[in-house]
Amino acid sequence: MITISVIGAGQVGTQFCKAISAAESLHLEQWYNRSKIDQQNGLDDANFCNDLMQLKPADLYILAVSDSAIETISNALPFENRLVVHTSGSVALRFLNKKNRKGVFYPLQTFSKASDLDFSNIPICIETTEKSDRKLLETVANTLGSPTYFIQSEQRQSLHLSAVFVNNFTNQLYRIAHELTDRHGLEFDILKPLMQETIQKLQNLSPYMAQTGPAKRNDKKTIKQHLKLLEKTPKYQKIYELITQSIQHTHG
Amino acid sequence: MITISVIGAGQVGTQFCKAISAAESLHLEQWYNRSKIDQQNGLDDANFCNDLMQLKPADLYILAVSDSAIETISNALPFENRLVVHTSGSVALRFLNKKNRKGVFYPLQTFSKASDLDFSNIPICIETTEKSDRKLLETVANTLGSPTYFIQSEQRQSLHLSAVFVNNFTNQLYRIAHELTDRHGLEFDILKPLMQETIQKLQNLSPYMAQTGPAKRNDKKTIKQHLKLLEKTPKYQKIYELITQSIQHTHG
Repeated sequence: MITISVIGAGQVGTQFCKAISAAESLHLEQWYNRSKIDQQNGLDDANFCNDLMQLKPADLYILAVSDSAIETISNALPFENRLVVHTSGSVALRFLNKKNRKGVFYPLQTFSKASDLDFSNIPICIETTEKSDRKLLETVANTLGSPTYFIQSEQRQSLHLSAVFVNNFTNQLYRIAHELTDRHGLEFDILKPLMQETIQKLQNLSPYMAQTGPAKRNDKKTIKQHLKLLEKTPKYQKIYELITQSIQHTHG
Repeated sequence: MITISVIGAGQVGTQFCKAISAAESLHLEQWYNRSKIDQQNGLDDANFCNDLMQLKPADLYILAVSDSAIETISNALPFENRLVVHTSGSVALRFLNKKNRKGVFYPLQTFSKASDLDFSNIPICIETTEKSDRKLLETVANTLGSPTYFIQSEQRQSLHLSAVFVNNFTNQLYRIAHELTDRHGLEFDILKPLMQETIQKLQNLSPYMAQTGPAKRNDKKTIKQHLKLLEKTPKYQKIYELITQSIQHTHG
């Protein structure tokens, strides 16, 4: 039995607590949060904790807190030589206090409170200073059902940057399409099969090979027509121009 | 039995021919292409045709040709008062010659030669000048398994523009992420569950509600770190800045 305490009750902390509680060979020792934890999550409140000084011994402490709080909380932990990991894509390992054994346990996924997540869809990127700690983190991740990748801090930051492109930025393009369809009395839903197929194609093709459309085939007439349709939203016109240029640069 | 002739042997024409041939209540009367049609598609070659003058009577002619060829081929058709539709997202109905009954039969999907498509994932946007022709186009689409939408030319152009955002532009963001992961010795595949979940979330949330990430929470430190990582690719840096601003404008 691996004992784990989770620090933080945001999306990531909550999902980890739920999954750890549900796993037979893992034990959720304690769940710390500065303020009271919303108990609608179905977890027994016996292990809740609001005081870092009351943290009991555990095999692993997962700091699922905001990037800016990692260093502070790591410094404030009232124990030494235990395994403490953070869950951030962009914070380097060195920001954890060296009085404890350090690691990263970064779930590469977008979390929402609404749904229970299937951890087989959540790759976990692992980094440790001590090789022996790797094995424990790998066991925890695999027990949750996650595939694991060993990735150093610098690589992880590039991965996080890539994640911003495929998740936040893609979502903003969906948002723009949502606005455009709304404005013309069209249902956004009509686009969903296309959105799905755009990803589906990448099962067999690279994004380079999968590209189609007016930018790639340099269809000036359609591009001009689209830019005219965007006249009233110059910000979107600019995005259209820039990504069109990018596609043409890639395929030119 | 509805008889249909398809003009054009690109991705769209080929997929329509395959699906029409497979449907019991539709008959592929002829398949026209200027040059010889590649016969590896498993269709009987008895109905191939290279000469517009040899087109026989049919209930429907589908012009699945490039946008720039629609007007020319429509003018060259050697018959009158039959139902002729094009399949383009961006060409207005008026570009079809008025000697025939006119319509649009626009499949809102990205087509690739490789795979047989499931038409239940291909919404078809229908437009006609004569109301009685609507019914026939709707029957054909539904027989293929497609949901149908009645959409006028102007709306259709906005829909096509939206499709460029969610398909071609999204795919270019995937391309950029592919480059970034490659450059740092990471597998692009590690991002795929995140890409999938980004869309999955939109089953229950609007793109507005689904947004997360450094731009939305105005995490200046991470944004600065990301822009630094993109120093060697100023074009991608520019895209990062512009979409980050767009997210902040949407959520500001």
